[in-house]
Amino acid sequence: MKKGKPYPHGGRDRRPQGGSHPPGERKNQAGLWLYGLHAVKAALANPRRKIHRLVLTPRSAEEMGPESLRKFHPELAEMEAISRLLPGGSVHQGAALLCDPLPTLDLKELLAEPAAADAPGEGRRIVVVLDQLTDPHNVGAILRSCAAFDVAAVIVQDRHAPPESGVLAKAASGALDSVPYIVVVNIARALEDLGRLGFWSIALAGDGGMSLREAAPISDIALVLGAEGTGIRRLVRERCDSSARIPISNAMESLNVSNAAAIALYELRRG
Amino acid sequence: MKKGKPYPHGGRDRRPQGGSHPPGERKNQAGLWLYGLHAVKAALANPRRKIHRLVLTPRSAEEMGPESLRKFHPELAEMEAISRLLPGGSVHQGAALLCDPLPTLDLKELLAEPAAADAPGEGRRIVVVLDQLTDPHNVGAILRSCAAFDVAAVIVQDRHAPPESGVLAKAASGALDSVPYIVVVNIARALEDLGRLGFWSIALAGDGGMSLREAAPISDIALVLGAEGTGIRRLVRERCDSSARIPISNAMESLNVSNAAAIALYELRRG
Repeated sequence: MKKGKPYPHGGRDRRPQGGSHPPGERKNQAGLWLYGLHAVKAALANPRRKIHRLVLTPRSAEEMGPESLRKFHPELAEMEAISRLLPGGSVHQGAALLCDPLPTLDLKELLAEPAAADAPGEGRRIVVVLDQLTDPHNVGAILRSCAAFDVAAVIVQDRHAPPESGVLAKAASGALDSVPYIVVVNIARALEDLGRLGFWSIALAGDGGMSLREAAPISDIALVLGAEGTGIRRLVRERCDSSARIPISNAMESLNVSNAAAIALYELRRG
Repeated sequence: MKKGKPYPHGGRDRRPQGGSHPPGERKNQAGLWLYGLHAVKAALANPRRKIHRLVLTPRSAEEMGPESLRKFHPELAEMEAISRLLPGGSVHQGAALLCDPLPTLDLKELLAEPAAADAPGEGRRIVVVLDQLTDPHNVGAILRSCAAFDVAAVIVQDRHAPPESGVLAKAASGALDSVPYIVVVNIARALEDLGRLGFWSIALAGDGGMSLREAAPISDIALVLGAEGTGIRRLVRERCDSSARIPISNAMESLNVSNAAAIALYELRRG
């Protein structure tokens, strides 16, 4: 498997005015506050992330390492002072970072390399497509699993997807800065683009037609997940090449969506 | 696999004075408010759950079905009126239930049946042991996966475990009333009891000694999970028969604990 490193592709500013963050995620300054040791460390390691302010306790400064301290000139502060910079209840672990949202990435440019021939399991490329998942905790946990299972990109729709935020980045535990998070206007059209790039799209659904294990012979895969409750929208599902299910007991109707994503990625990586 | 049904064992009141719920989970009355369609439906279907008040919108009343309406005499109310009964921001979906915490269950009594001989995969018994996991969202999501993968019991320590609460029950999506949730004083001693009952205990850890797949030949399993950050405590880990890991990329240090639990249960059920 590849070592994790920030993705190298450039692009336009995803949100040039930074105006689409929910209230509470920002306090008076332009930009976005990220917090938590893993989220801040990953953002500092990402050359595409524009940094404005880094605020650390002495202990978390030690955690960040000498190179970060030399490069980003952190302000030292107490835990309580950092809490006052952030929305109430943010578990910041003594690390807060004011930065810009990441510039956008282009799906086709990112995935332009041809698929590795005969590469199921470890070698296959996987992208995850989220159809209107809005809970930043779930989307963050999914990003974290995507980093853990070497997913090439996470694709969301510009409406009905959580914007970059401190909550999302914290739940992603650094993965927001290591897994390409691609915002598209239309999911169905993105699936068509993925098809042309050699990806086989699989809708994950309780009534899916095959078990995930049967997907093993397929090479590059786009795994499509829908929101809890409503599931994948009909028009998106019709655009998928097939559907798959995770076999579960009759005792439970469905799994939490981030848990389902984790199981699916684990199974697809086993090959 | 067995059909999900409320567990039949009786027992003493887990919290006789109901006094250990966090502030905000209760409003003026004795007992515990549960909310959300799945959580309320499962509580009503559980004969061990003592019901005090059931408050529904007309729409959620329809969802509960005629039998529940006949049996529990719900009060009809608007969404906003139900919101006022609950902590701010509770996503109640038009259903709230004031009830008692469940009576305690005895580990040895619950698991007294002998292990099915030669029953890996679907037939094996699995219990999940949570060592000081405190986040009710994570513990709730784990309960939900436990119901989905027919886990026989979830064992937590009385200190450092989330008490029964609306948040826990909502995240569990009904599983709090279908999976036995056993509170013990001492996790290490519970592992000894499990050993005598024929369970092989596996500590799930990033540096685990075998992959989960290698656990396949083992029959009844106690899967032990630790808190994010600190992991399984040393004394608990030493009491486990073995340790296992989920293979992940170097790009991510660890998975979200509920995602790790879901993957482990999926793998253990595959046999």
